Formats: sequence, C-alpha cells, structure tokens
Amino acid sequence: MALIARRMSRLGTENAFKLGDDIQRCVDRGMDVIRFNLGAPDFRSAPHLNRVASEALDAGRSGYCDPAGILPFRQAIAAHVTRTRGTEVGPDRVVVTPGAKPPIGYTLQTYVDDGDEAIYPSPGFPIYESWVRFVGAVPVPLHLSDERDFAFTADDLAALITERTKVIILCSPSNPTGGVLSRAGLAGIAELIRERCRPDIRIYSDEIYEQILFDGLVHESIVSHPGMEERTVVASGHSKGFAMTGWRLGWAVLPTAEEAAIFKRININIMSCVPPFLQEAGVAAYEDPASAVEVRRMVGEFEKRRDWIVPALNALPGVHCRTPRGAFYVFPDVSGMCERLGVHRAHATLPAGARSRTSPAGMLQMFLLYRYGVATMDRASFGRIGAEGQDFLRLSIANSMDDIRRGVARIGEAAGDAEGFARFIAEEAAILR
Amino acid sequence: MALIARRMSRLGTENAFKLGDDIQRCVDRGMDVIRFNLGAPDFRSAPHLNRVASEALDAGRSGYCDPAGILPFRQAIAAHVTRTRGTEVGPDRVVVTPGAKPPIGYTLQTYVDDGDEAIYPSPGFPIYESWVRFVGAVPVPLHLSDERDFAFTADDLAALITERTKVIILCSPSNPTGGVLSRAGLAGIAELIRERCRPDIRIYSDEIYEQILFDGLVHESIVSHPGMEERTVVASGHSKGFAMTGWRLGWAVLPTAEEAAIFKRININIMSCVPPFLQEAGVAAYEDPASAVEVRRMVGEFEKRRDWIVPALNALPGVHCRTPRGAFYVFPDVSGMCERLGVHRAHATLPAGARSRTSPAGMLQMFLLYRYGVATMDRASFGRIGAEGQDFLRLSIANSMDDIRRGVARIGEAAGDAEGFARFIAEEAAILR
Repeated sequence: MALIARRMSRLGTENAFKLGDDIQRCVDRGMDVIRFNLGAPDFRSAPHLNRVASEALDAGRSGYCDPAGILPFRQAIAAHVTRTRGTEVGPDRVVVTPGAKPPIGYTLQTYVDDGDEAIYPSPGFPIYESWVRFVGAVPVPLHLSDERDFAFTADDLAALITERTKVIILCSPSNPTGGVLSRAGLAGIAELIRERCRPDIRIYSDEIYEQILFDGLVHESIVSHPGMEERTVVASGHSKGFAMTGWRLGWAVLPTAEEAAIFKRININIMSCVPPFLQEAGVAAYEDPASAVEVRRMVGEFEKRRDWIVPALNALPGVHCRTPRGAFYVFPDVSGMCERLGVHRAHATLPAGARSRTSPAGMLQMFLLYRYGVATMDRASFGRIGAEGQDFLRLSIANSMDDIRRGVARIGEAAGDAEGFARFIAEEAAILR
Repeated sequence: MALIARRMSRLGTENAFKLGDDIQRCVDRGMDVIRFNLGAPDFRSAPHLNRVASEALDAGRSGYCDPAGILPFRQAIAAHVTRTRGTEVGPDRVVVTPGAKPPIGYTLQTYVDDGDEAIYPSPGFPIYESWVRFVGAVPVPLHLSDERDFAFTADDLAALITERTKVIILCSPSNPTGGVLSRAGLAGIAELIRERCRPDIRIYSDEIYEQILFDGLVHESIVSHPGMEERTVVASGHSKGFAMTGWRLGWAVLPTAEEAAIFKRININIMSCVPPFLQEAGVAAYEDPASAVEVRRMVGEFEKRRDWIVPALNALPGVHCRTPRGAFYVFPDVSGMCERLGVHRAHATLPAGARSRTSPAGMLQMFLLYRYGVATMDRASFGRIGAEGQDFLRLSIANSMDDIRRGVARIGEAAGDAEGFARFIAEEAAILR
C-alpha cells in the first residue's frame, strides 16, 4: 500500500490556476504582471444581480435546497435552453452545479467504463483530458489545426469513431481557440453520429461561451439537430457571459429525467447543493432584461479588443494569429518567435525529465512571465496528448485595452531579446523544473 | 456497453434529500408536515455575516479565487483549529470546500485503492458508506449500539483493524446518534492506531458538529493526541454551528501541505473554487465576537428542546430514547412501537424485493409521514450494511418547540393506531415499492 491511491496519478490540473503561484512569485519580486492567463471577464457581476442575492440572503433563504437546483432556476434554465436551442426542455432534465465545470466529471463518471473511448477537442479545456484519464477511459484527442481555422469536419471526427466510442466532447465557442462550429458543420456532425454511433453514446456539449460571439454570429448547438436531443448533455452557466465566475453557477441539461437524477445524486454525494440565494440571482440573469444589456456591452468590448489585438500580434515578427469568432481568447502561433529566440534549441538541450514536462511554448511562456511580466498559457496547458511540436500561446482579452496594449508591446520587446532568453534559461533553471 | 457505467450502481444517496419528494407529495395532498428529517438548524445565518458577504459582492470580489480557498479564510481556519485542537496548523494545510461533505469523497479517492478497507461508524452519515463503496474499497462498518450509548472503545475498533485498513472514519459529535467521544476514549483510540496501524493510514475526523455540545461538554478531537496530527484529515465547516447550511462553506485540514495540494487539485477538477465573497463571511464567523454569541444562543435552544423531547419520547409506549450529548438529533429505539403496530409482521410478508429495499423502521417512517405528517428517517438511512433488525428513527430537534410538541403528540397517536397502519399498508403499497 502507498499513501496516495494510484488513481490520483491520472488526475490532471488546470494551469490557469497553477500559474497563480508563478505570478505571485513575480509580484513578490516587485514585478507588474499583465494577466493574459485568466479565463474570467474583467467585468463585475451586474449590480441588479448582486442585489437579488443579497436580498434573498437577508430574507433567510440560506438553508439547504433541492440538490438538483431550486425549481425557479431550473425552470429559467429550461426556458432559456428551449428558447435558444429550439428544443423543448423541462426542469426535470436540468441539474444545477457549482459552475459549468462539474458536469464534465459527472458525464465521464456516469457514462464511461474502463476502456471505453472518449473523444475531446485538443487544444481544449484541460479538464476534459484530466477526467477522461481519471475515470480510466481511453483518451482520443480530436486535434484542431491552425491551418483549418481550428475547425473540424464530420470526416475528421469520423476517423476517430470506433465501436468503443462512448462520449464525444464538443466545445463551441471554443476555449482556447475562439473557433465556432457553424450550423452546417454541426448538421454534418449530427448526421455522422446518427449513422455511426449507437443510441447510448453521449455527446457532451460545452456551451459555456454561448453568449460571447462576434461578427453578429448567433449561438448554435448540436442539440438542435435531429436525433441529438436524446444523446446530448448540454452544459453552460453564468461564469463567462454574465461575468459571474466566482459565483459558481452552472447547469447541465440531460437527455432524460432519469439521467438528471444521476447527476443530482452525484451533487448529493459531493456538495449537497448550490447556495439557493445565488441561484435566485441566476434566475434574474436570464429573466431581467437589464442582464442582456450588460452582456451586449461586455461582448462589444471584447470584440473591439479582438479587432485591435489580432493585427497587433500579426505585426510582431514570428507571430501568426487567427481571428477568433467567439469566447475571449486569442491563440497565436508563436513558432517563429520561438525559433528567433532559440527556444527550440534550448528545449532540446533540457534534461529528459524537464523536457517532457515542458514544451518550447511553455519555456516562452515562462520567459514572458518572469522577464517581461506577461502571463500567458502554452498549448500543452490545453491537452498534453499529441501536443508536441505545436508552439502556441493563449492570451485572454478579458483585460483592459490599456493592459492589452502594454502586454503586446512587452511581447514585442521580448521577441527581439534572444540574449535575454539565453540568460533566463541559465539563471532560472529551477522554474523550468 | 451499457448506457450507465458500472461504478454508478455503487453510488449511494442521502435519504434526507430523497425524502423531499415524499414530503412534497404529502404537501400536495394538503397535509401539514413536521420536518423532523432535516439536518439543518432552524436558525438563519447571522445578519452580521450576511452583511460581510453582500459587501464583498458589491465591492466586486466575485471572480475566481485560489482553488484552495482565499488566504484570509485559510488563515482563520488554521487559527481556529490551532486554538481549539491545540495543534499548530498553518494555512498551507487547509483546503476550503463547498461544505464539509466534499472532503469525504476527496479522502477516499486520495488514499484508498481497490480492495483497501475503510472503517466507518454505523449508524453514521450515509455518504461515508456511499463513497467507500464508490471508490471500490471494502466497507467495514463499526456498529454502534444503543445499549452502550452509541459509544465504542478502542477494543471495538481493534477487532476491525487488519493489514488492509487504510482509512478510519470518526464522527463526534455524531450524526445521527448524538454520541460524543470523550478525551479518554479518543486517547485509547489514538494509542491503538499508533500501535496497530502503519503511518500511512489516514483517520478522517468529521467534526462538523464541533460547536453543538450539551451539558457543558467541550469539543475533543483525535488530532489533539500524540501521533495523530500526521495521520488525520480533520473536516468541519460553517453549516451546522453557524446555521449556514445553504452557504456551502466547509474545510479540511490535511496532515501535510502536499496532501492539501491534492485536495486543491480535486477542487480544480470539480468546481474550481468556493465563492470568495462567501468565504469572507466565513472569516467573520470565526473572528467577529458576535458569532460566538449567536452560536451559544442556538445551542442553548437545542439543549432545552433535547431536555423536553427525550422524556416525552420515553413516555410513549414502545419507544426508548437515549440522551444525546451533542449535534441536534434524537435517535430513539422504536422496536416496541413497531411490534405493537404489527410492522415486523407486515415487513415479513412484503415481496422479497421490496423487503430488502426497506426495513420495519422504514415502513414506520413512511406511515408516520403519509398518515400523521411527521417526517423522520429510519436506521437504514445511516448505513445499510448490517443494519438489519435495528428499529430506530432519527428526529431532528432543529425545529421550533411548538413543532416538536405537535410532532411528538402525533407520534403518540400513531403508536396506538395499529388499524391505521394495516390500512396504510393495504392502500399505499406503491410507496413501499
């Protein structure tokens, strides 16, 4: 017997949180750090929503509640999904969770046995790969490529589907790429799944960025396509669109009430319920017209920033950046910058252990943070399996225009500082582990 | 492949929440239901704590925070544990969780491999048995008996310890029995563990009822005894003592910072973090002297109710009730009442499937609810393995004196209604499944 159980070696993490320790170290050294790493809007939750929560608290609605979520919130979620996805959903198929992240683990625990296969986008939210491995499933990354605008077709997916495919994870708008699946693209994927998969596979459709779309795009969901409602777990919540990340308000809509009852049972076994006074604000977010105004204002800001940062990054030597259509990230290819700074060479000469734990983009990420005070995240932070040779960084544009300008200027300086990079490698071996 | 993964058949539930559906059915039938089933104080969270949360929210401290918990809260928890348990704890060993329930599953996932043994009290909080089975451990219930005042000795525990023992769960004050482990009793248990167990076993000490003690008792923890700090996960929180059940504020103190980092990683994989503005109120609960006044007032009320209900229950024919020393439950033996009502006979004649899913006390529970509007919970709701032949009900005294009086009067009436019970069985076969 060992102190720590074997399963724990398979549980991954999210570098967005882990990087916090490095940022703190830089701040402790007296640096001013621009936080392009954070996946949280730089907006506050709206005052009218704060007020609903405070009033519910003062009124004493602060005890345990239904572990599936209070009925008015489940009704509001069901109405929202019915309205936006064109599929009739009742509150008995809704489960409220602390943020939109819990349904990832719930889905993999509920549907996947040892050795079943789970397909997930890579680059993608790192918690997908973590849970796939934790439950003992076979991870099958669906690699998205820059050349194809981080989109994929039904043919790409078809090549990965086997007899053992049990869960297929989709995420649109996508973190970290900002890619958006089109209605036609989703129709093709739906057709493929109808033809090639048995009815008891499940699609996990992560739609947490559903409100954050640019260029006049409208949110599209796989669940709107024939045969998909009975196969799809739709997950979303209030963190991103309503700028309520710290509230931990999320939800899943399950194909059946029976499956929702299983998610409710998992809630009961982990945290009992989500604070009812926060759920009341969750209702208001969907029902109070003031919310939509706030969302539009925020998304408008993100779009302006995108329109500034994409050409600004493309103007840097060795950087190539696509234009995201949604979410609040840019995901530039920095292989040219790595080349100019000598990062690939430095990576190749790392001791084997350290080399496998980091990546060239990961070394660039640390250089930018520790020498230029710019926190970004490397490609490997969004799925490690098969990420070798891909030099990308994710930058969040959920930062003020001023910080974005200053941050890009710093990256521009860093791009010309091969000498500084060489010194960094020599001086800070411990950081690169 | 089946739709639902095999592991889910091992995940239990908590009848306290499940019973909500039955209560709703009774309310829908027009009944007035007295809720002796709830494990939540009938007090509201204190206004000075509500205010702290609302102000933090208005100030915009509503974004993601450290997944281990905000530093001031971890510091306040560390200071509280240091002060009350006499053991020096720093914030790097503290992890904040949404309520005191998540650490149960975290502990079993972190330390227990397939086939390891986990010892837990029975009757006890049902989520222990659920997680023990879910992670594939061998469940080893430590049966507590009425005759011995629901206490146990080191000898009782010694009889269960083997080479494969990996986790030992303790809970004092106890849900559902109200039993409290004494300093001398804990010293004996600690000595046994030092002698018989390897250093890498872990004790899970559930101390969520730490503030709710009667008769002038002071809270005692296993972690205060030699050799225990390095083996014990202490879990507690704000739900019970501070009447903040719906806030979902809890914590675990781990033996080492490395183990705390694992719990933090589990938080990252499930729900990212606990709302920071709620954690600020958690700090105030420990640091504002107004909190202690509220706690004393509430515990004084619970003690008065206990002093009324125990003799009142003992005055009913066929009911025998011990005097709890902590928590807010009474756990009477109702075997005499079952006998007088013909419950044992009725149970014996149920079809095999239904018989194994319920118990005589479970049938009495349903009779009391559906015919007398009194919601209680049967013995099997607190650990099923080896619970056969034990006729107990748990009644929460977290209800007004008025409801307690009315509820006990109704139980008294029911105790004489053998005819009504026979009719109930005939009419409501569906309820008994």
